[in-house]
Amino acid sequence: MLSQHSHLVVPKQISPVNFPATMSPPSTAVVYDKYGPPDTVTRIANIPPVVLNANEVCVKMLAAPINPADINRIEGVYLVLPPTPAIGGWEGVGEIHSVGSAVVALSPGDLVIHAAYLSGTWQTYVVEDQSLWYKIDKNTPIEYAATISVNPLSALRMLEDFVALKSGDTIVQNGATSIVGQCVIQLARIRGIHSINIIRDKPDSDKIKEKLIKLGATKVFTESELEVKDVKKLLGDIPKPSLGLNCIGGNAANMVVKFLKQGGTMVTYGGMSKKPITVSTTHFIFKDISLKGFLLREKNLDEAQYKCSIDHLLALVRAGILQYEMEMVPFKDFHIALEKAMGKQGSQRKQILTF
Amino acid sequence: MLSQHSHLVVPKQISPVNFPATMSPPSTAVVYDKYGPPDTVTRIANIPPVVLNANEVCVKMLAAPINPADINRIEGVYLVLPPTPAIGGWEGVGEIHSVGSAVVALSPGDLVIHAAYLSGTWQTYVVEDQSLWYKIDKNTPIEYAATISVNPLSALRMLEDFVALKSGDTIVQNGATSIVGQCVIQLARIRGIHSINIIRDKPDSDKIKEKLIKLGATKVFTESELEVKDVKKLLGDIPKPSLGLNCIGGNAANMVVKFLKQGGTMVTYGGMSKKPITVSTTHFIFKDISLKGFLLREKNLDEAQYKCSIDHLLALVRAGILQYEMEMVPFKDFHIALEKAMGKQGSQRKQILTF
Repeated sequence: MLSQHSHLVVPKQISPVNFPATMSPPSTAVVYDKYGPPDTVTRIANIPPVVLNANEVCVKMLAAPINPADINRIEGVYLVLPPTPAIGGWEGVGEIHSVGSAVVALSPGDLVIHAAYLSGTWQTYVVEDQSLWYKIDKNTPIEYAATISVNPLSALRMLEDFVALKSGDTIVQNGATSIVGQCVIQLARIRGIHSINIIRDKPDSDKIKEKLIKLGATKVFTESELEVKDVKKLLGDIPKPSLGLNCIGGNAANMVVKFLKQGGTMVTYGGMSKKPITVSTTHFIFKDISLKGFLLREKNLDEAQYKCSIDHLLALVRAGILQYEMEMVPFKDFHIALEKAMGKQGSQRKQILTF
Repeated sequence: MLSQHSHLVVPKQISPVNFPATMSPPSTAVVYDKYGPPDTVTRIANIPPVVLNANEVCVKMLAAPINPADINRIEGVYLVLPPTPAIGGWEGVGEIHSVGSAVVALSPGDLVIHAAYLSGTWQTYVVEDQSLWYKIDKNTPIEYAATISVNPLSALRMLEDFVALKSGDTIVQNGATSIVGQCVIQLARIRGIHSINIIRDKPDSDKIKEKLIKLGATKVFTESELEVKDVKKLLGDIPKPSLGLNCIGGNAANMVVKFLKQGGTMVTYGGMSKKPITVSTTHFIFKDISLKGFLLREKNLDEAQYKCSIDHLLALVRAGILQYEMEMVPFKDFHIALEKAMGKQGSQRKQILTF
C-alpha cells in the first residue's frame, strides 16, 4: 500500500498551495430542466470544468444505457427523483481520468462502473465521490459493464433473495423476453433451476420460443397457450414453481400465480400492462401464496453483497454464459437512441450510448 | 408417575383376557352422509359404544362451537374435507370419561380441548387417540375453552408470526367486529400496540365503535369515513401500521393496504365479501407491500407452540382481559343453533352447543 500512498508524502521544500488543483475536463451532458416528455425536456449542454475535492474522482464515461427507469425519472414519475436541473442516466461504465488527493483505491486508467442509484451518467466526464464507483476487470466488454448493475443484478437478486431455490426447483416468469427475463433464464439454468417462461402472442412467437430455449429456458408458453383449465398439467415432470416473477400485471400476473405451488411467492418488479394485480382470497388462504415487490434500492444491498453480485455476473459475462442483445449508439445520436428507447420506433434492442 | 402406571401391573393370578375392555358409552352425534347445505344434509344419529384402544381416550363433550369453517366443511367447500359419512364440528371442550390401558398423561375428570384439526366434536362422547386432546386448567369457563383454539389462536398467531411488532407499533384490520377482530384488538392492547379498525357502515355504527374502543381499539372507522384522499392523515400521531389483517377482500382490503406503511404486510385470513384482492403494481414496487395468507394448519404450529399459545390465551380469559360474546345452546336445539350460525336469522352471537 505504501506505493499508493507515496504521493501523499509532500517534500518539505514545496508549499502545498503550489500544488495544482486537479481539474476535470469540460463535459458534455444530457440535461433536463424540468420533468416532462424526455424527447422534449432534454437538451445537450456543456458543463464547465470543476476542481476535484480530495475524495472525488473524474471518470471519462465510455458507455451508458437508456433504461426505462431513466425515462420515468425524466418524466417525473419515479419513486426517487433528482432535483432539476438534472443530468440523465443512472448506470454506466467509464475509465478513471484523474483522482482527488485523498483517493488511493482508484487510479487513472481503472475501469469503473457507477454504483450509485441516482446521479447522471449521460455525460462525457463525471466528477463524483470515489465511493460511488466500483472498479471492475478491464477485460469486461463495455456494453455489459455499462448494463450489469440494473437488469442482470435485479434478475440475480430476485432469484436469491425471496425463496431458497436449489438445483431441480422451478421458477415461472412473464415478460420473459426482456433483458431481466433473459438473465433470469440464464442464471436459473446455471444453477440447475427449471424456468417456465410466458411470452405474448406474436406472429414470430415460434422464433422467440426457439431463442429462449437456446438461452436455457425449460418451457416457453404464449399467453393464449395458457388458456386451459389446469396450467400445471403443462409442466409434465417438472416440479411446480416455488417462485414467480411478474413485470406485467393484469392477466399475465394471474398466469404466474396459477403456476405457483402451495406456499409459493410471486415477486412483482414491473407493471408493463399498467393493470393491477388481482388475486382471489382462496389463493392466499388455501394455497398460501405470498405476493411481494422488488426494486433495486441501495438499502437492500450492502456494499459487500453488491460487489460480490457484480463480480459474479461479470465473470459469467466474460465466460460467455450470460448474454443479451444491445445496440451501441454514439453519444452525438442521443436523440435517436432516446426515441428508440421510448418505443417510438417499435420494439428495439437496449440502447447503449457510447462516448 | 407410579400411581398412574399402577393399573398396568397385572396380578399374575388373573389372565389378561379377563380384563374388561374399556367401552365408551353410546354417543349421540351430528352426522352428514354427503356434502351439501348443512341444514339439509345433517342428521342426529346414535353411535354405538366402541372399545377403547390402548392409546385412546373417551371424552364426554361439554361444549363445541359452530364455526364458519364447520359449515364450509359440511358444504364441501373447505381445503381439507373429511370423508363422508362424517361427524360435524372441529373445536370443543370435554371431560375425560375413561382412558385406554396405555394412557398415563390424562385421567378421568380432566378438562381437555380438542387439539386436532379435522374430526367431529358435535357428539356427546368422542373416542380418539390421546394425542388429539390437550389438558387445560379446570377453572376455565367452558364456552371459552370450547372456542379458544380457532378464533383467538388465529388472532394471536397473526399478531406474532408475520411482522415483529413492538409496543407503540400499529396494526390495521377490517372485519373488526368478528371474534377474531375483537381478539386482535384486545391482544394488541395488552402488548401496547395501537389498532386501527375498519367496520361496515350500519345504523348502529356509533354503538359498535364505542364497544370496540372499550375493548381497547385505538381508532375505529366506518368504510365511508375512509373515502378520503389520504387515509394516513386520519392517524394523527399514531405511527403508520406495519401489519394489516384482512378477512373481507375487495374494497375493504384496499383500505387496509392504503393504511400500511412502506414495507408493510397485509395478511388475508378470510374473504367475506367473496371479492378478490386487487393491488396496484406501484404498491409492490415502490411501497414494498407484501401480501400473505393465514390459515390455522397443524403444520404451522408445533406442539410446544400450540400448547404455549393456548395456555397464554386461557390465562388472559381467566384474568378477564380477553372477552367476546357467545350464545350457549343445548345440543337438542342443534338445528336452531345451526340456522343462527348460517346467518338465517340475521347477525347472531357465536353459537356454542352444550352437551
